[in-house]
Amino acid sequence: MEGLSFSTDVRIRFAETDAQGIAHHASFVVWLEVARVAYLERNAGGYQAIRDRGIEVLTTEVRLRYHRAAYFDETLTVWTRCTDLRGARFTYEYRVERGDKIVADGYTRHATVDRETYRPTRVPAWLAETIATAESSSA
Amino acid sequence: MEGLSFSTDVRIRFAETDAQGIAHHASFVVWLEVARVAYLERNAGGYQAIRDRGIEVLTTEVRLRYHRAAYFDETLTVWTRCTDLRGARFTYEYRVERGDKIVADGYTRHATVDRETYRPTRVPAWLAETIATAESSSA
Amino acid sequence: MEGLSFSTDVRIRFAETDAQGIAHHASFVVWLEVARVAYLERNAGGYQAIRDRGIEVLTTEVRLRYHRAAYFDETLTVWTRCTDLRGARFTYEYRVERGDKIVADGYTRHATVDRETYRPTRVPAWLAETIATAESSSA
Amino acid sequence: MEGLSFSTDVRIRFAETDAQGIAHHASFVVWLEVARVAYLERNAGGYQAIRDRGIEVLTTEVRLRYHRAAYFDETLTVWTRCTDLRGARFTYEYRVERGDKIVADGYTRHATVDRETYRPTRVPAWLAETIATAESSSA
Repeated sequence: MEGLSFSTDVRIRFAETDAQGIAHHASFVVWLEVARVAYLERNAGGYQAIRDRGIEVLTTEVRLRYHRAAYFDETLTVWTRCTDLRGARFTYEYRVERGDKIVADGYTRHATVDRETYRPTRVPAWLAETIATAESSSA
Repeated sequence: MEGLSFSTDVRIRFAETDAQGIAHHASFVVWLEVARVAYLERNAGGYQAIRDRGIEVLTTEVRLRYHRAAYFDETLTVWTRCTDLRGARFTYEYRVERGDKIVADGYTRHATVDRETYRPTRVPAWLAETIATAESSSA
Repeated sequence: MEGLSFSTDVRIRFAETDAQGIAHHASFVVWLEVARVAYLERNAGGYQAIRDRGIEVLTTEVRLRYHRAAYFDETLTVWTRCTDLRGARFTYEYRVERGDKIVADGYTRHATVDRETYRPTRVPAWLAETIATAESSSA
Repeated sequence: MEGLSFSTDVRIRFAETDAQGIAHHASFVVWLEVARVAYLERNAGGYQAIRDRGIEVLTTEVRLRYHRAAYFDETLTVWTRCTDLRGARFTYEYRVERGDKIVADGYTRHATVDRETYRPTRVPAWLAETIATAESSSA
């Protein structure tokens, strides 16, 4: 997937469908989170490791465009990369695919806060460097 | 509803349905929780008040029997009462109705723990008395 | 709320919170849907009436910006209006408020499809007119 | 796992946690469903294959006992077997484990219905035999 460095697969659960017979659109928001957690596990020792160092990551924006319906038991591939890491803010971009068809795409924006005070705090240098390395090596 | 002292209404959300065209069975577990929160608001100043006093309430058991399917946008009435309050444990019983039809029934069991240590701690006397009063006055 | 004609209240459920102690960001996507359903009940005889006439409404885009965290048991007011109704497509705009504070805002885009074929079909005239009347009378 | 013939792993998602910092108890109900779907994929060509033959499987009862809290990003193993298959009804038993610790156990009961009429219909012979073979070979 051009430009997006990392992917993780999600199998659509029956509980994630709705009475239209398709995956409910809110389910995709959860799958993007699953992809971020997998990305951080690969590239930064895991989201829990970040939390354990006193940082919480908030979601400040979600944008998703749905191009095709997705169905129970299908396997979707969520491609993602981390971009625009500056200060306490960064962005993930996504493409959700089924085989060679695009099902959805979008981005989420995030801010790092101190776990005790919930005040904005810069993305720690170790994390910023780890992500920069991951993204440059995959380009 | 015979014996069950309190009720709260739930309107079935589209996101709570599944590809069978009915409310997903896990949605009912959330509605029972909504009923408990409403019950505690009426009878004990709210669940948050209990948490603010250093107590967390864990769910230790769920049992639900489903008698009829429920559908998008229907209003269900969740009848409940609190019983068997002893030490750090208590039970809620439920009947979920649509009009005069029973849709589901069951119970949940709970344990109170200290919010810091997550060790079992007796249900505080003020809460036990409040619930005893609520249940005896509704009998 | 300036420009947004309709509001519905949502009480945050415990199941909608996450381990950050706040409402999970995907929960908001469900609340926007709750607001749309309430809007259609007020203005068009309900979403089920639309489905009963052979129309299904798909969500084609979601955009949400989160301005403040929201917490268990808080009541949020979801303000909304329907705009840009053209052909088989329309948009809802939202502001989610707690008291006089904005918690989130955004929009969703939708397309109407035939319930049997899932092919795009124009928004029926009766529905377009009903919504136009609702929005003009609230301006 | 003694007596339970099949297992599938579930990784706890952040969206599945709650403000107690643990996996929400309703999440387990969804994981049991994930295990049933995986079981049917292994033993009966998949749940979708059953639906494609005109059968829908309803959940008529859920019982879950929670023995330990489970946390974000942990991997749980859901052990299951299918039992008591008679007429239009059958049962799944479960043990949910983290390493060698039991986290939860319970059962769900189900009924097969005709997909058009939603009337009870016997479990098809091919499915009953497939499951009987799977369970006897694993004993």
